[in-house]
Amino acid sequence: GPVPSMPVMEGKAVFYHQLANVSAMPILIDTKDVDEFVETVVRISPTFGGIHLEDISEPECFEIERRLIEILPKPVMHDDVHGTAVVTLAAALVACRHAGLTLEEEVVGQIGLGAAGYGIAALMADAGAKRVIASDPNPLSHDRARQKGIEVADMETVMNEADVVVATTGVRGLIRPEMVRKGQVILALTNPYPEIDPESAERAGAAFAADGTSVNNVLGYPGIFRGALLSGAEDINLPMKLAAARTIAELTRESELVPDALDPNVHERVATAVRDAAVESGAARMDRASTNL
Amino acid sequence: GPVPSMPVMEGKAVFYHQLANVSAMPILIDTKDVDEFVETVVRISPTFGGIHLEDISEPECFEIERRLIEILPKPVMHDDVHGTAVVTLAAALVACRHAGLTLEEEVVGQIGLGAAGYGIAALMADAGAKRVIASDPNPLSHDRARQKGIEVADMETVMNEADVVVATTGVRGLIRPEMVRKGQVILALTNPYPEIDPESAERAGAAFAADGTSVNNVLGYPGIFRGALLSGAEDINLPMKLAAARTIAELTRESELVPDALDPNVHERVATAVRDAAVESGAARMDRASTNL
Repeated sequence: GPVPSMPVMEGKAVFYHQLANVSAMPILIDTKDVDEFVETVVRISPTFGGIHLEDISEPECFEIERRLIEILPKPVMHDDVHGTAVVTLAAALVACRHAGLTLEEEVVGQIGLGAAGYGIAALMADAGAKRVIASDPNPLSHDRARQKGIEVADMETVMNEADVVVATTGVRGLIRPEMVRKGQVILALTNPYPEIDPESAERAGAAFAADGTSVNNVLGYPGIFRGALLSGAEDINLPMKLAAARTIAELTRESELVPDALDPNVHERVATAVRDAAVESGAARMDRASTNL
Repeated sequence: GPVPSMPVMEGKAVFYHQLANVSAMPILIDTKDVDEFVETVVRISPTFGGIHLEDISEPECFEIERRLIEILPKPVMHDDVHGTAVVTLAAALVACRHAGLTLEEEVVGQIGLGAAGYGIAALMADAGAKRVIASDPNPLSHDRARQKGIEVADMETVMNEADVVVATTGVRGLIRPEMVRKGQVILALTNPYPEIDPESAERAGAAFAADGTSVNNVLGYPGIFRGALLSGAEDINLPMKLAAARTIAELTRESELVPDALDPNVHERVATAVRDAAVESGAARMDRASTNL
């Protein structure tokens, strides 16, 4: 059943409240059927200003999110896909800065095309990376990636060709030091044991390497949803996600990878940037917008 | 849609929290179909320790409650039926005390057999009233009442034969002073304009009369649910409801009809009585019981 998801959802509800003054309620839905899940969310949706989807298995999560976005006139976001992608893009922008690279001029490699990995690769492409190349042993993940313009290859090719590598495989130690290319940026995000530990990666020649310790979704969703709600937008569109990622990257100080997730100023700045992006992109519905939640 | 129900549900959630330390979330369900409503509640039910049903039209509410009680291993209560009935029974016990009557020796008359009226008449019968007689212009309400052992008659017969009259019709001024029998107890509960105002009723010979001003559900549901949750009971059974009503009646001081609904001691005492009744009646599941919520 869904009960084991409750503590994570309760924690996220607390962060929504404390960091962004957004009132969130965790709701468990006890079904494995996509139609039933979607119709249940639709029926209870009048309760909510937006829907944060959490802890839904893939590939069902992709169809569930797509259908809910289509049906509901309010923000819907699967945090495991898009929240993770926004925070990872922010971390990648900062890592490139540390390594003297510019994301738009680099080849990005994504290892692992689960919910998080697909979201990261897709947002890297949307953010303007020169080329995105990805690997995953599961062939069912390949079509989805190719439809998004992501090239699919084996892991060795990804490691050879990418300037910036992100790994979300769940497999400890998957990246051996001899696979690292000199000057690469490597974000090995599997917790608690990364695909390669940052010290080994840098010893093997990486220009910058980090694990997932600080790359936490809590940097993204509170401000993203607050900004979406402030703007009255019916969707969380690409400009809003990019604005969130760029703001998080801008707020990162000195040698850090991301800002302090518990700094309320970070969330306020993300919310403002997301709201402004909603206005500029035409997503905002000012008749429903609010300056105060 | 269901959105207009939100303020009432939010208010009840606040009272749950402030008066009984029970965490409650208002959830709106956007369907008019009984099957869809029931399956939606069942699917989201792992989120909750109990289900307080609110603002569901009748007759659908009766089937919805019955099916949810049958399916779910946790307390389910439609407050408009049972919460109202508990608080009204408490008020009737106090009114009888003021009038020198004993409910068990009296004929109770119920005018109006909607959700609240049916619940009141049924609980009066269960509480041991000598006889319960009820009227309603809608013939669809009669079978349900008769199956519960409630006699159905016209309003004039009810006014002639009842010692204690409860009215929940929504019709201002329905009871004319010449219908009042000397020595009757009359609770004319339609808000804000009762079926007969208390002064007119007493002038016409009633031993005691009151309107619905103070007969508020908030006296019941917070303590009832807290007691049910404390006991780990899977249902809110009759002994638990009677214990709640009797406790509310016992806590009423001097010339009042019911106790002060904002007195936290009232809710604590109701919760304790409901928990004890769950234990004594065998409904408590001590493996799931708690002394602290």
